Amino acid sequence: MKRSASTVTLGLVQTSCSANPAENLKKTLAQVERCAKAGAQVISTQELFRSQYFCQNEDHANFKLAESIPGPSTDAFCKLAKKHKVVIIASLFEKRASGLYHNTAAIIDADGSLLGIYRKMHIPDDPHYYEKFYFAPGDTGFMSVPTSRLDVGPLVCWDQWYPEAARLTALAGAQVLFYPTAIGWLDGEEEVHRAQYESWDTMLRSHAIANGVFVAAVNRVGHETGDIRGQAASGPGLEFWGGSFLCDPFGRVLATATHLSTDIDYRPVSDGEMAAALARASGAGRRLPARRVEALRI
Amino acid sequence: MKRSASTVTLGLVQTSCSANPAENLKKTLAQVERCAKAGAQVISTQELFRSQYFCQNEDHANFKLAESIPGPSTDAFCKLAKKHKVVIIASLFEKRASGLYHNTAAIIDADGSLLGIYRKMHIPDDPHYYEKFYFAPGDTGFMSVPTSRLDVGPLVCWDQWYPEAARLTALAGAQVLFYPTAIGWLDGEEEVHRAQYESWDTMLRSHAIANGVFVAAVNRVGHETGDIRGQAASGPGLEFWGGSFLCDPFGRVLATATHLSTDIDYRPVSDGEMAAALARASGAGRRLPARRVEALRI
Repeated sequence: MKRSASTVTLGLVQTSCSANPAENLKKTLAQVERCAKAGAQVISTQELFRSQYFCQNEDHANFKLAESIPGPSTDAFCKLAKKHKVVIIASLFEKRASGLYHNTAAIIDADGSLLGIYRKMHIPDDPHYYEKFYFAPGDTGFMSVPTSRLDVGPLVCWDQWYPEAARLTALAGAQVLFYPTAIGWLDGEEEVHRAQYESWDTMLRSHAIANGVFVAAVNRVGHETGDIRGQAASGPGLEFWGGSFLCDPFGRVLATATHLSTDIDYRPVSDGEMAAALARASGAGRRLPARRVEALRI
Repeated sequence: MKRSASTVTLGLVQTSCSANPAENLKKTLAQVERCAKAGAQVISTQELFRSQYFCQNEDHANFKLAESIPGPSTDAFCKLAKKHKVVIIASLFEKRASGLYHNTAAIIDADGSLLGIYRKMHIPDDPHYYEKFYFAPGDTGFMSVPTSRLDVGPLVCWDQWYPEAARLTALAGAQVLFYPTAIGWLDGEEEVHRAQYESWDTMLRSHAIANGVFVAAVNRVGHETGDIRGQAASGPGLEFWGGSFLCDPFGRVLATATHLSTDIDYRPVSDGEMAAALARASGAGRRLPARRVEALRI
């Protein structure tokens, strides 16, 4: 695919979410538009931005949040993508069929076409992250989606803990790995919080280093009880830590959203001169030929 | 294997190297002994501690540095291991047969027996790191070696850039991944130096996080021209950055050797209460069942 620009500007939309899904969609669409007007060319939402993080409990009523792809949300993003000539990665709760749901990233090109979908491959099941109740494991495998701006590597949240996922997405050709995420603190001591946050940060940056690619993490922010139109999960809720960032192939953070702040709702970030940055990280590129594929007893 | 202690103390021997291989062996043996007397139970040398880093040039004379395994160095370490009842991981230039050499880690148990060897699987070929001239790629695969103290996961230097290597070693049962390394700066700007050092640090800590294991990195320190008994490589030499460290399964650094200091020659470090630390990092353990092995097109 012919691309004119050697520099691509990314927009990472980090928001807080209300109990009203329609409002959240409106808010994210507005922030995507704001990013586009600020010069962003490839814009990613956070994971499941349409609602508070409903996986805090197992409630059949929450399946009503799901939608088909294509569907109302992708229609709205496709329209916006075409209007502003931007690539959009939108994280959605996909209703694939009756009783079959996925945690899916839709990749929309700058001409407004829906290029493809990636279905989250690694589904967590942790206290207050009951995703296995809602989402079937993805069946798309790992992929790179060539867009008119760059080769997008879509991955979703829990995938971040699997170096295999990052490796295979990079080997497929992705230049930037995008991780829409919804990660935060349940409870516990300050020291454990710091360790959890730094593990997340370290892990994501390591994917950039191991594979010679850029990594964009787009996390939600703010305290949530999983409130969907007034129906909240029991318990203290989760404190989503925000801290969305973009790093280069050395794992250096180029831009980051305010940690734990709810008043920073968007952050268009520039990755600088991508070709130059990739050249400087050529050590990573040189490593790949030394892989010992025959020795990988997976 | 029955083990009495739930806490294991590790010793990481970080040294500077002279032009005299016999002196370097003597020095490392002395430091291993010093670690043992200080309470270390599992002790690792840095990579190829017997000489300055000779791979800075391609010189046939350097093959004389290699030795068989078992051989003089493993004999000396086996004797020391038995005397102090310590496990030792020794990184050696192995002569396997005429014309066939490896970069090998020998694992010696606390009773003085040579338990096994791991041959470095990923061999670099970078300016001033001409290892492909010297070492055939390892044929051992990735392994965990059960010792009387803990399950040792031996890996060597360049392996550190491959999450696959760490994953497979951990899946084999290793509790601690040991990386004897020889990594430093050739030239370049301060900013690039910092990026290189931090990439190394981040990558190694990410292996701990991804796999729920401890990681011990044992790097050489000091400026070297690859001087072997007065025969040095041309060029400015390499500045090995030291900075050996041990981190827990959250990637938190528990102990670190002085960065760029040549006067800190050894550092016995404690990993604290290993069982407790592993329990606290159980998130990592929980991730492994979600691996999508069928999707790994390696």
